[in-house]
Amino acid sequence: MPDEIVLLDFWHSPFAMRVRIALAEKGIEYESKEEDLSNKSTLLLKMNPVYKQIPVLIHKGRPICESLVIFEYIDEVWPHKPPQHLLPSNPYDKANAKFWADYVDKKIYPTGKLVWGAKGEVQEAGKKEIIENFKELEGELGEKPYFGGESFGFADVPLIRFYSWFYALEACGDFSIIENCPKLVAWTKRCMQRDSVSKSLPDQYEVYCFLMDLKKKFESK
Amino acid sequence: MPDEIVLLDFWHSPFAMRVRIALAEKGIEYESKEEDLSNKSTLLLKMNPVYKQIPVLIHKGRPICESLVIFEYIDEVWPHKPPQHLLPSNPYDKANAKFWADYVDKKIYPTGKLVWGAKGEVQEAGKKEIIENFKELEGELGEKPYFGGESFGFADVPLIRFYSWFYALEACGDFSIIENCPKLVAWTKRCMQRDSVSKSLPDQYEVYCFLMDLKKKFESK
Repeated sequence: MPDEIVLLDFWHSPFAMRVRIALAEKGIEYESKEEDLSNKSTLLLKMNPVYKQIPVLIHKGRPICESLVIFEYIDEVWPHKPPQHLLPSNPYDKANAKFWADYVDKKIYPTGKLVWGAKGEVQEAGKKEIIENFKELEGELGEKPYFGGESFGFADVPLIRFYSWFYALEACGDFSIIENCPKLVAWTKRCMQRDSVSKSLPDQYEVYCFLMDLKKKFESK
Repeated sequence: MPDEIVLLDFWHSPFAMRVRIALAEKGIEYESKEEDLSNKSTLLLKMNPVYKQIPVLIHKGRPICESLVIFEYIDEVWPHKPPQHLLPSNPYDKANAKFWADYVDKKIYPTGKLVWGAKGEVQEAGKKEIIENFKELEGELGEKPYFGGESFGFADVPLIRFYSWFYALEACGDFSIIENCPKLVAWTKRCMQRDSVSKSLPDQYEVYCFLMDLKKKFESK
């Protein structure tokens, strides 16, 4: 029931995208409440007093915070719709999927910020690093269609949300992701054929404009 | 069988401690290989090529990296010894336990480093923040004997490993944890009564000396 499940959301957040994809994959109806991050709602401050950040999933009035935690919660609470689980059932494959999800959070997010948000040497170092990161991910993907193997799953979601950053990274970093990582880009195309993904990600150019506005704000401070 | 399970370990690492506690709780025999972090072994570089960091659990020849991922792997692969699982079975309680485990990694570890490793204003800010962090944790503990409720579990392990930092934090920050957070300290005493914990944590004074050596090395660079 829509009134049971509320997502405190922000359309451009790569962390919120992960949650939207998981909810869409499970076919769960929910109410999305878009937050104004410059003027956070009382509900957000109440539901996530520790970090005061989106995304927050409110299920039966109780908050679940942090996107990876929310993702696993969704996968566990609603396991009966196909696909049964987004996380692999084998413990080793599950651990591997979590390792790469964490890798994307630890590496792509901060390094990507340097590429679109920094200048000069710092930006140049970020660009080199993100190409290495993408190549490392491409190595993990190998010849498989998806990170987990034959079907779209948990390990695909953390990275695919950064697909919406691709244009901004290429435009700001002046490099081509497809030239460096053709298999990774082919994988993004496969993921984008899924409604759960394409409808949960904002347009790349829109994200670019959003990030450039953010950059201007940082610079004027 | 001991030869099946190997832990690439480092006695003072708060991340490795978490894994040692989980293995001890499950009663699992393993071979601990202490790493020299200034001269990492070929095995470590091969088993964790991405981060080249301990802890790494090698099970049947396959590596599992990142302490929280290892912890959940252990909990899932060896569920049949008491306690059945260290993670709660209820999805909401599980999500909550993961949230606080992540909180400790995100907050206590970097803030603690400021308290023992920095000076002047930075150290002072770190000290104020870590007291707030501990109070926030104490608030979450409430009147319960353990973070998860009546018994020791997943949510207790991430924090208790920082018990070994308590002396260093108090000595460097010139403050008393028990004065600020008496219930939190009472909880540490309960945890330390468990063999799995007391035998997995290094002595507080030894850790203090180790951290002060580390600080000198940073300062001389």
